[in-house]
Amino acid sequence: MSIAILFGGSSYEHEISIVSAITMQKVFKKTPLVNIFVSSNREFYLIEPRDMKSSTFSSGAYKKMQKLEIKKGGFFVSKMFGAKAVEFNTLLNLIHGRDGEDGKIASLMEFFSISYISSRLEACAMSFNKLYTKFYAQSIGVKSLDYQLLNNESMREVLLPFPLIVKPCRLGSSIGVSIVKDKSELDYALDVAFEFDSDVLLEPFIANIKEYNLAGCYTDKWELSIVEEPKKDEFLDFDKKYLDFSRDGKAVAANISQEIQNSIVESFKAIYGELFQGSIIRCDFFEVNGEIYLNEINPIPGSMANYLFEDFENMVLRLASALRFEKKIESKYAYINSIQSAKGKA
Amino acid sequence: MSIAILFGGSSYEHEISIVSAITMQKVFKKTPLVNIFVSSNREFYLIEPRDMKSSTFSSGAYKKMQKLEIKKGGFFVSKMFGAKAVEFNTLLNLIHGRDGEDGKIASLMEFFSISYISSRLEACAMSFNKLYTKFYAQSIGVKSLDYQLLNNESMREVLLPFPLIVKPCRLGSSIGVSIVKDKSELDYALDVAFEFDSDVLLEPFIANIKEYNLAGCYTDKWELSIVEEPKKDEFLDFDKKYLDFSRDGKAVAANISQEIQNSIVESFKAIYGELFQGSIIRCDFFEVNGEIYLNEINPIPGSMANYLFEDFENMVLRLASALRFEKKIESKYAYINSIQSAKGKA
Repeated sequence: MSIAILFGGSSYEHEISIVSAITMQKVFKKTPLVNIFVSSNREFYLIEPRDMKSSTFSSGAYKKMQKLEIKKGGFFVSKMFGAKAVEFNTLLNLIHGRDGEDGKIASLMEFFSISYISSRLEACAMSFNKLYTKFYAQSIGVKSLDYQLLNNESMREVLLPFPLIVKPCRLGSSIGVSIVKDKSELDYALDVAFEFDSDVLLEPFIANIKEYNLAGCYTDKWELSIVEEPKKDEFLDFDKKYLDFSRDGKAVAANISQEIQNSIVESFKAIYGELFQGSIIRCDFFEVNGEIYLNEINPIPGSMANYLFEDFENMVLRLASALRFEKKIESKYAYINSIQSAKGKA
Repeated sequence: MSIAILFGGSSYEHEISIVSAITMQKVFKKTPLVNIFVSSNREFYLIEPRDMKSSTFSSGAYKKMQKLEIKKGGFFVSKMFGAKAVEFNTLLNLIHGRDGEDGKIASLMEFFSISYISSRLEACAMSFNKLYTKFYAQSIGVKSLDYQLLNNESMREVLLPFPLIVKPCRLGSSIGVSIVKDKSELDYALDVAFEFDSDVLLEPFIANIKEYNLAGCYTDKWELSIVEEPKKDEFLDFDKKYLDFSRDGKAVAANISQEIQNSIVESFKAIYGELFQGSIIRCDFFEVNGEIYLNEINPIPGSMANYLFEDFENMVLRLASALRFEKKIESKYAYINSIQSAKGKA
């Protein structure tokens, strides 16, 4: 079984996707990897294992590498006569942010019939947009924090009490996120957030809130990671999160009660449900007074949260074997034929 | 300005998309059309205007026509040396159901930088799934009917009173929809609905409910159709709806009070909002005791609801000129460079 790592993309998280993909080279110890880079302008390149280092991308050297085209059944190298397929069994979508997490890559894989590990289209739509995540959480009975949506730059009347967290609706990795302690800091924080997104979410900021992460997937059984309490200062900024994308060691399990552990696991299973089948996701939770709240769903977590699992590589292989596909729909043209015969047309 | 009509697709509504596309040939009187067919197995074919008749598709004759490939910038004919682009200004997504309305086509157009009229990815996700439509309606303060979700074939305990409507969550054109008058009819209706979707929505069935349709878009101003009261027997089944897809005459405006008219228009504008920019949608509303409820949002309505507009063709051209594109995100590799220099690497 070989795995294609798809990374890069037209996204503010382009670079951390590269870091995630480089990390995968160490994480997969026995599985042959094929590396497919998506440039910022959305062209595909085949990157040889020896070139999987950051300078290949930052120097632009990738532009001299083998260009690929996506077509029905896979990625192809153009040849004078016909096209040659790049061989792999399943693709792992490792594009963070736009393209990878918003559902575009999932759409391409479904459309071109390529076997892939990733949140599917609807799952991406519901998790990439933090507002929709709240709708979804509510519908399955999982709590999330209070919020207010600002969907217009000029609309700045805040109804929640300070301090607040200000978040662009559709970005991960803490990009454009600010903590706002009082009204004097609000305008700048909103300017920053609206720079990245036309929809901005406000949530109460709770100092020293307990935060827990759990990742997992469903193969033919639940495969759940340890629960980690992520290290943080007051707040994880982009630079610090960046380091998360290169993690390949093993995390330490949080020291929590069985009750909290169970509550986190049950919330994760409810969230994953049917919607996230085919994917490995990481859910970030808060604990407030013994109750678990969903903070966010990472449909393509940094370095696939490999560091949270006992045996990440074999889990990926099991998931690749368990993937389900969209139902085939063949048209028999029954309606057109019946209308034609009613009209007496050929 | 020329328009490409994209139709067909891997969908239960494949055939009605063909009917919609054939209708467009009559509706566009001055604009040159390029017709691109997506077969059930998702291959692209260029169909000459003279071949835009149903027998081209039902007979399989399309398979002998020019095959196209989608790539950055458009659709291409493969040539011995290089590839030749099919020329058009903007594509009109006319694929009903899966692929067209679920966000896949929108994803392809964004990814390959093709100018297109269609609900965008998130808009598709929120309107294709009738459950998500309810979340969305609630978030913008538009009423919709009570509901119950069944997301497991074995889960058949109904909490709503009879009579009910049973609907697969993700299908249009009334496919798989049943009215259930009492408990004895329930199992069969659920069997049918689960045949098409793993999620099934139940809603109260209100006999003789008033139904109103309004279509429109935002160009540099609101462009709204008349409000139509669609003809129906107890229920519009697939055969009757089918005829809707070939409509090219003019509909008659419903005889309603100014108050109801305003309420429908305001609901439409709230729904369209920012989410549906770039698209022409039709919203179907109910009136219950003078109050307007959203029934469903059609992100790609049958024959684009052309029959509801005074001058559909010019509106499409205005919308094509007003289309906005995703923000370009160029990576400057600032983070990778800073990490490299911190590590002293080349």
